[in-house]
Amino acid sequence: MCDAAVTVKVKYSVSSLPIATAKEVFDLVRDDLSAVEREFGRQSKSEVVVIQDIARYLLSGGGKRIRPLLLLLSAKALGFTGESRIRLGAVVEMLHTATLVHDDIIDEAQTRRGKPSANTAWGASKCVLAGDWLYMQSFQTALDERNFKILDLLIGLTQQMVEGELLQMQKLGHLINEEEYFDLIFRKTAMLFKVSMQLGAALAGVDETVEQQLGEYGRNLGLAFQIVDDVLDLVGEEATLGKPAASDLREGKATLAVIHALERGTGAEREAIRTVLADRDFTRVKHATILEILRGHGSLEYAMDAARAYAEAARQSIADLPQANAEAGRALRALLWVPGYVTDRDR
Amino acid sequence: MCDAAVTVKVKYSVSSLPIATAKEVFDLVRDDLSAVEREFGRQSKSEVVVIQDIARYLLSGGGKRIRPLLLLLSAKALGFTGESRIRLGAVVEMLHTATLVHDDIIDEAQTRRGKPSANTAWGASKCVLAGDWLYMQSFQTALDERNFKILDLLIGLTQQMVEGELLQMQKLGHLINEEEYFDLIFRKTAMLFKVSMQLGAALAGVDETVEQQLGEYGRNLGLAFQIVDDVLDLVGEEATLGKPAASDLREGKATLAVIHALERGTGAEREAIRTVLADRDFTRVKHATILEILRGHGSLEYAMDAARAYAEAARQSIADLPQANAEAGRALRALLWVPGYVTDRDR
Repeated sequence: MCDAAVTVKVKYSVSSLPIATAKEVFDLVRDDLSAVEREFGRQSKSEVVVIQDIARYLLSGGGKRIRPLLLLLSAKALGFTGESRIRLGAVVEMLHTATLVHDDIIDEAQTRRGKPSANTAWGASKCVLAGDWLYMQSFQTALDERNFKILDLLIGLTQQMVEGELLQMQKLGHLINEEEYFDLIFRKTAMLFKVSMQLGAALAGVDETVEQQLGEYGRNLGLAFQIVDDVLDLVGEEATLGKPAASDLREGKATLAVIHALERGTGAEREAIRTVLADRDFTRVKHATILEILRGHGSLEYAMDAARAYAEAARQSIADLPQANAEAGRALRALLWVPGYVTDRDR
Repeated sequence: MCDAAVTVKVKYSVSSLPIATAKEVFDLVRDDLSAVEREFGRQSKSEVVVIQDIARYLLSGGGKRIRPLLLLLSAKALGFTGESRIRLGAVVEMLHTATLVHDDIIDEAQTRRGKPSANTAWGASKCVLAGDWLYMQSFQTALDERNFKILDLLIGLTQQMVEGELLQMQKLGHLINEEEYFDLIFRKTAMLFKVSMQLGAALAGVDETVEQQLGEYGRNLGLAFQIVDDVLDLVGEEATLGKPAASDLREGKATLAVIHALERGTGAEREAIRTVLADRDFTRVKHATILEILRGHGSLEYAMDAARAYAEAARQSIADLPQANAEAGRALRALLWVPGYVTDRDR
């Protein structure tokens, strides 16, 4: 499914590619991202008031909009500037939001991005349906493009994401190995990054090799993104994260650093980790104890190294992409900037 | 949205159309329905074991398969006999099943068709995802047909169904009028019947008038079907229904007979009905008391008359449909049989 576990071993090096600055990226996509925000407003219109309320609550929730950003940059790097990029930019964020709503029901999450989660605010029942509605609205918008390739990408993606979430549920509280971890984060996160890039290619109608390069960039970037997310979850503070610290461990989820420590720890250390995963709280073993174990084995740094390796692999995936024009060149340099943003963020 | 409340006033008469017998219908569709069952098996294959388990549990749950039946007969009545009818027959039943799983989570249903409901057997979390997966698998199969018309019908349908369920949630425990009732049952039930018929037309590639006639048949039949379902829920026994008696009232849902009685009852009778809808149980007001009120105003007969009127309207919708060949004629006569089956059943 995903050969990620192998790629991790490739040593990364500081990229010598022409990387844009944050300001250049911001200037390049500001108007497009605003247009995507306006598109959310149009898309979340429904004669059923509660849908409109929940959809707007969710879409105004302060997401990083990294998926629409990828789609916009991918399309632009290939010289495509039609309106479809705005609509599909909204679609990938709405799909992402649909999965978040259903995941929050399953995880019984109380907060998301520092606000009460939708299921806290509206109850699980309405959120089941609000998630369904967001899925359907996304497909409706995509269907209006009259492009089977786009639909193939989106339906295939959604199935993988749902299966990923179910696989994760089955593994809660259990020890998993790196291969299982990478399969999970590919389905949960990296595939949507990959498809966001591929949608840009589908809009531009480029040949398969280019689509593959962009998809590979998305996959590598998505893996880096999720590894960093998982490290931040372990070491971050509640105020910065917008959710309780170490919520993965509280939900019984073993992530890369934890798996690393499990494979290297003493019997007592392994037992401590196992206890937290089974208990799903820090009553018997403290959060600080776990962090101490992880630091003792360099596990957090191991995970961050893996993330940086994937970030550089993402850059390399598009290093030799042809540039249609100056604007396309700027988009390409912006894509080279994103991996650094992903690995250096603190939330 | 739905002019159903008006049509109800049309007086029905015993049809003089050439109606098939149950045996003729059974002989006509037996092989096709078996093929649809085999298609479920293929469709519910997933490398994620729990999905396969839940999907098979749900699809083997003893449904009446009326939606695939409609699609098969619609296609056959138009002379279409390609394999797509089997695949889409499975799709409409899988979509129906997806909505049932999510509805059961919302209603916290304990049983469905005399068996533990899926959320009782697997827990709500897995069922949120199993429902999502069934939606995606249905769309995937439909997408493989490479026919935008089919996708338009299915995506539009699903959105309406989800909105209908949300509207119903908002109205739980409240008094609604006939117009609201018909809008709800159109979205919840009749639209899928309509689309099942329209899909047959889409496969056959007939002109819009014929598609409309078949759609109208489906809509009328779907309304009749749901009205009967709602009456059976009021008067049926748990053993026959496969779920607790009067579960609609227990969930705060006012259906046609109840609305009829509310509009005609004395102050005390209205208060009794209101109490049950608010309490969502029969502690303060007994089930027998409600049935007595309904019988006193002829409300159950009123609802059944409405169902029979829609059943006859369904027959009339296709009365002048041209017949491509003898097999198409048999399918048409079978379609004329279905409305009587729908209104005369006891579960």
